[in-house]
Amino acid sequence: TINIERLKSRMLKMAQIGGTDRGGVSRLALSDQEKEARALFIQWLNELNMEVRVDDFGNIYGRLEGKDPNASPVMTGSHLDTVPKGGKFDGTLGVLAALEAIETMKESGIEPACPVEIVSFTNEEGARFAPQMLGSGAITGKFSKEYVYQRTDQKGLTFQSELERIGYLGEERNRPGKIASFIELHIEQGPILDSEKIAIGVVEGIAGFSWMEIKLAGQSDHSGSTPMNMRRDSLVAASSIIHEIYNWAMSKKDGTVATVGTIRTVPGIINAIPGETMFSLDIRNSDPVQLKECVKEVTRLINHIAREKQIECTVDEIASNQPIHFSPFLIETLENVCKESQLPYKKMISGAGHDSMYLNQVTDTVMIFVPSTDGKSHCEEEHTSWEDIEKGISVLYKTLCKLVNP
Amino acid sequence: TINIERLKSRMLKMAQIGGTDRGGVSRLALSDQEKEARALFIQWLNELNMEVRVDDFGNIYGRLEGKDPNASPVMTGSHLDTVPKGGKFDGTLGVLAALEAIETMKESGIEPACPVEIVSFTNEEGARFAPQMLGSGAITGKFSKEYVYQRTDQKGLTFQSELERIGYLGEERNRPGKIASFIELHIEQGPILDSEKIAIGVVEGIAGFSWMEIKLAGQSDHSGSTPMNMRRDSLVAASSIIHEIYNWAMSKKDGTVATVGTIRTVPGIINAIPGETMFSLDIRNSDPVQLKECVKEVTRLINHIAREKQIECTVDEIASNQPIHFSPFLIETLENVCKESQLPYKKMISGAGHDSMYLNQVTDTVMIFVPSTDGKSHCEEEHTSWEDIEKGISVLYKTLCKLVNP
Ligand SMILES: NC(=O)NCCC(=O)O
Ligand SMILES: NC(=O)NCCC(=O)O
Repeated sequence: TINIERLKSRMLKMAQIGGTDRGGVSRLALSDQEKEARALFIQWLNELNMEVRVDDFGNIYGRLEGKDPNASPVMTGSHLDTVPKGGKFDGTLGVLAALEAIETMKESGIEPACPVEIVSFTNEEGARFAPQMLGSGAITGKFSKEYVYQRTDQKGLTFQSELERIGYLGEERNRPGKIASFIELHIEQGPILDSEKIAIGVVEGIAGFSWMEIKLAGQSDHSGSTPMNMRRDSLVAASSIIHEIYNWAMSKKDGTVATVGTIRTVPGIINAIPGETMFSLDIRNSDPVQLKECVKEVTRLINHIAREKQIECTVDEIASNQPIHFSPFLIETLENVCKESQLPYKKMISGAGHDSMYLNQVTDTVMIFVPSTDGKSHCEEEHTSWEDIEKGISVLYKTLCKLVNP
Repeated sequence: TINIERLKSRMLKMAQIGGTDRGGVSRLALSDQEKEARALFIQWLNELNMEVRVDDFGNIYGRLEGKDPNASPVMTGSHLDTVPKGGKFDGTLGVLAALEAIETMKESGIEPACPVEIVSFTNEEGARFAPQMLGSGAITGKFSKEYVYQRTDQKGLTFQSELERIGYLGEERNRPGKIASFIELHIEQGPILDSEKIAIGVVEGIAGFSWMEIKLAGQSDHSGSTPMNMRRDSLVAASSIIHEIYNWAMSKKDGTVATVGTIRTVPGIINAIPGETMFSLDIRNSDPVQLKECVKEVTRLINHIAREKQIECTVDEIASNQPIHFSPFLIETLENVCKESQLPYKKMISGAGHDSMYLNQVTDTVMIFVPSTDGKSHCEEEHTSWEDIEKGISVLYKTLCKLVNP
């Protein structure tokens, strides 16, 4: 059975890489810290005698051979990058849970009929290189290689140059071929399981998202000598808009969420009226028709307020994906494992995007959620109890056992 | 008389240093560009046989000796630094107008009874090192040397280290002694003269200001998986506050202006609810009692909205100065010059701060304004017609002549 102490010690060791003084982790994709995390992961794969490959997007695979080496592998894993001042569980848990499951499998003398692969995908968060889930999107046909390589961070550094710099630009032939199935354990990053005191979420699908960039242009002027009634202040307009987007999303009551996470003014000094204001918008909805309608409504709302305030306005969608539904067969498999283990579970939709979202396009996919205390994630306070983690990994382990020896 | 072509050619030459492709200037205090501008200014001072000094804040003085070298100098000038993407007139005009006035004085064979000094003050804008007017504030007792030297820019570089780097850390003994009077020509940076088609503003005083930093703390969470009704979004609160500050200032009708110029979120990524939002606030009023009342009212308003939204909040005043009134004697002198020259003028208050604000604490001071087209300033479109500039410099010249030979 699962060795939770071993898992815990690996989790805490990994959390030191990029660890913050308030118990969180800052380990952005392709940073020096993430490079160090990759090396530690590979060391652990080696200790398990797994064969390591790195593909041309820096995705790392560890392979345990099956009785039939020509069979398609069952794959499991997640990501090692974090947002700035994020938590130690988001992504990392899915990678190290996979290690723990395989190690347990080996210890139990289980010989898989097909190969099993553990994967860590590059830049899941999108915190450094937008959009999110570049590594998994790239190998499943969502993004072209050119597109991924040209993504740039705030300093103007490209995905490709940073991948090269940290020494993880691998070979195209190392991408996976046909995958038999994909399963990802992840923290919920929301409040539902925690508030209902249920340890296991059987994830049926992922909400679709639209990521937008809004640019408002008014007139930059001197803050001291321009009378209030002669201003065209782009930040005042942005403030109205951000507040109205919030009210709009609050009133929807269909699970729509809308978030403005970044904002910037130009010239961006204390004594000039902001001539330009740029901000991001992240909208999610689990229904494809509703999501489309949301984007329309919010674009109308933004343009309406901007017009009212005589501010020029552009709204650009920089990334999006339809809501997805996971494999009914795998959902049922997960439910059966939970029932056999007498573990209460909840079927649910993920509001957060995950690598599984894109894997689902190429193979049978499913996810297991474990609770996030108070629903907190993408923050240093992110937490999940080791008891819940143990339950989650045991479900992952038992499901993998069924999949590798059907 | 004034040689407007000579002035124009110097203005355009100076505008190339840090010139932007849209006709503006980016020449931040103590940058490489500003270093180059300093060298050109000193070259021109040398060509006029003026004795050049640099003090321990990088303020540059050019001195034309008077018949009585022991008399206190009449001083005139402004600053050469600009905001990012600022204009070519703000500050620079006052420095080069001073050069033009002195050159005209020499050509006219006028021998001043007392010395005349041209000055260019360091970091008037406060765009790189907050607060504004550090160089003039330092030599007039507003700021201590330690305080000025420790100001840091966004990159963490200090005023002192940058002053040293560009080679303008001069000697304390080069600061001016007693100054007989100070006069500064500047663009209005507001719309009044332009809209009333009057070329000359006789500036009676400068509005007081309070610069504040507001910090809001809510809860950072995942943008996709945190339901709308479970959020404590610091940016949504900031948006409300910024909008209400605007409405509050609009409703004052007593000339109060309030501006939020900069804003930043933490973690500052597209898929996290902003846990923290920081923004600046610049409030101005020409009445000291009203200014104090404004700061109180706006602080109450900020705290009220923050409390309502369950967001923690701190409001810090980072710089302030009382409204000031210029020398009645110099105001009258300016008026007399305008009347003798049959130039219509308008007595007015400056909303923008100027080095004259601090010089006024140590000597008789006054300012001359020339119009800003459409009131635009701190932007690349900043403009003043050469006709208006010629009128402004002739008033400066004639006033200087009266002051140096009373
Ligand atoms: N799970 C997670 O944090 N993914 C990052 C991409 C997203 O914002 O959905
Ligand atoms: N005149 C001017 O732009 N001064 C900068 C300091 C201020 O904002 O008042």
